[in-house]
Amino acid sequence: MKTFNEGVTFARGFLAQGVECGIKKVETKDLAVVYSEVPCSAAAVYTTNRVQAACIKVTQENLKNGRAQAVVVNSGNANACTGEQGIKDAQRMAEIAADALKIDPSDVLIASTGVIGVNLPMDRVENGIIEACRSLSRDGGHNACLAIMTTDTVPKELAVEFDIDGVQVRMGGMAKGSGMIHPNMATMLGFITTDVAVSQACLEEALRESVAVSYNMISVDGDTSTNDMVVVMANGLAGNPEINDTSSQAFKKFKEALDLINIHLAKAIARDGEGATRLIEVEVNGAINTLEARRIARTIVSSNLFKAAVFGEDANWGRVICAAGYSGAEFNPDLVDIFLGEQQVALNGSGIPFDEDRARSDLARPVVKVRLELKQGSGSATAWGCDLTYDYVKINASYRS
Amino acid sequence: MKTFNEGVTFARGFLAQGVECGIKKVETKDLAVVYSEVPCSAAAVYTTNRVQAACIKVTQENLKNGRAQAVVVNSGNANACTGEQGIKDAQRMAEIAADALKIDPSDVLIASTGVIGVNLPMDRVENGIIEACRSLSRDGGHNACLAIMTTDTVPKELAVEFDIDGVQVRMGGMAKGSGMIHPNMATMLGFITTDVAVSQACLEEALRESVAVSYNMISVDGDTSTNDMVVVMANGLAGNPEINDTSSQAFKKFKEALDLINIHLAKAIARDGEGATRLIEVEVNGAINTLEARRIARTIVSSNLFKAAVFGEDANWGRVICAAGYSGAEFNPDLVDIFLGEQQVALNGSGIPFDEDRARSDLARPVVKVRLELKQGSGSATAWGCDLTYDYVKINASYRS
Repeated sequence: MKTFNEGVTFARGFLAQGVECGIKKVETKDLAVVYSEVPCSAAAVYTTNRVQAACIKVTQENLKNGRAQAVVVNSGNANACTGEQGIKDAQRMAEIAADALKIDPSDVLIASTGVIGVNLPMDRVENGIIEACRSLSRDGGHNACLAIMTTDTVPKELAVEFDIDGVQVRMGGMAKGSGMIHPNMATMLGFITTDVAVSQACLEEALRESVAVSYNMISVDGDTSTNDMVVVMANGLAGNPEINDTSSQAFKKFKEALDLINIHLAKAIARDGEGATRLIEVEVNGAINTLEARRIARTIVSSNLFKAAVFGEDANWGRVICAAGYSGAEFNPDLVDIFLGEQQVALNGSGIPFDEDRARSDLARPVVKVRLELKQGSGSATAWGCDLTYDYVKINASYRS
Repeated sequence: MKTFNEGVTFARGFLAQGVECGIKKVETKDLAVVYSEVPCSAAAVYTTNRVQAACIKVTQENLKNGRAQAVVVNSGNANACTGEQGIKDAQRMAEIAADALKIDPSDVLIASTGVIGVNLPMDRVENGIIEACRSLSRDGGHNACLAIMTTDTVPKELAVEFDIDGVQVRMGGMAKGSGMIHPNMATMLGFITTDVAVSQACLEEALRESVAVSYNMISVDGDTSTNDMVVVMANGLAGNPEINDTSSQAFKKFKEALDLINIHLAKAIARDGEGATRLIEVEVNGAINTLEARRIARTIVSSNLFKAAVFGEDANWGRVICAAGYSGAEFNPDLVDIFLGEQQVALNGSGIPFDEDRARSDLARPVVKVRLELKQGSGSATAWGCDLTYDYVKINASYRS
């Protein structure tokens, strides 16, 4: 599978653009449109937060038929906790885009990210949508990726090319993250486009499984957003025989590509967590099953105490086993082996002597690896997070202002 | 009910002492003994962390008969993840104290707090226990309180005097907190002594109920410790008719005193959270039941994003409703009213105009109050936490070193 530094316009028939329409206080792109020349089968997963943004509700409605042709995304304003007006605004965004693109409003999906509780400046948003639709292009994918960023410091994109049943197919994606990152069934915003021909049922299944090992395995701060959404759109323009069986080799290959892109984007979000200086990767093996492994891995990357220890390059593995212990997962603490980097620091739940200097230098690397061997079963999982730093506090002490 | 700036030796027949025996690297008290001249009925609650320190296991064993006469507490070393040797060390601590006090080892409870995964320096610990037992006194309660502190910046004590069935009775307590504070069924270390005559069954019930509204309603960093323990010891020396009916007025009064002390100590722990500059108090009313109200209140005080916003005096109420939304509690977001200080900032789940200057000054107070009115039922709860600051990161980036 060949990877490319491309995004949502890498697959055939997808155009995009990102523009600055004045939603954000700073002068930077804040509105993106992604468009497919033909209708796509589409699937999405959303935040499990009981408080859901207006855009989530409108997108859920518009995606009931499993079909979509465009996505409109704005940053700078989450359109959450905005009442009836918020719903009307999200619907209006779909209508404006549909008008400009000459498609049905119900084929337009809407996503938003930014401040909660403030109504959208709709005049600017409308102008932005019209401008973006007018300038859609094959080269506009990167601009779209820039336009969905909030406190992200780097854009997050990846594309792949592979073949299915002898047909060369493509897939690309973009995501944004940074803060309020503790996805549950979905993540912050992620958009995947592909020219693979795949049934809507298979697309749903592939996305659901892929999100479980990617976005749902990262955490920046334990806060699950009101706006999380991951969308995948497949327009079939590659011309492969349609994938409609989840047990087929073709589905497996499709899923592999989807996982590759989603895990890449998820790790990029964790690495670019607000104020982060390091990516933390926690691998759990030997759990009684996969779910328990996931629970433990994710709880460890979510621990403020361990995250702060990594920032301080302090090999405080006690905080690792402590977090495993309160994860709610079932395991025997007296069997746990812990490795920091390549070095073992605990055996059967107890500390063993280790080289502190080596541990400190392992913790100073850009990617800090932690591994737990539970020795009870075959459940494995990997989760990603970032360190907790002064800058996280700084960024979030003044985000809204 | 009259309150006093006293602690565990306020009630009749209780003696205590705190000494420095060299467990901590810095020269400061690190070992405490609390002793009752006569055996007590006793009850305790412990951490729900699957990884439990050796002291927890030994105390659970020794408290099986519901009776205790002394508690030994060390700070600077948690005696957690220390294997068989850890258990032997905790048992040895009970034996040394029992020898010195001429009581049965099974009447001695053991608690520890500090670094995980390192065996106790038992020679020093033994000397410390002997020294503390030799110098036990009515005036030693405050020293004991100092000796259980880790990163705490202030000691946490309170005592009360009240009457039961016409008899004047006393109760006093001490606690330590600061980091790894997200108690679940118990808290960090808390010790309550009383001269009230009360059956063990009533004591258990009173403690269980009281912990639910005090220590279980605070959070500093979302990390549930391996060593949490709250112990209450009642020696009956006040001479009141023994309380043995949880529906009696006497039990109600006893519970009132216990709640007063526990809530005071819990708030003191939250206020003194690592790096904290403010106490956050979140009140939730109108939930469908008490449990759902507790869940929402506690999730809000645990939100890193909201905690950082308070530190930055940013009236970002969107993070409050977002946290309520991912708490897992059942409520209708479209009915929620939110107040910051006395000022309403959201009505029926949507933002309303408010005075930003006033909000900022409310957030600058030592106690920041947030209130949610869910308008669905009669469930209420209050939770306490603290802001997330640069100093929290600083303290925890270097705690072990």
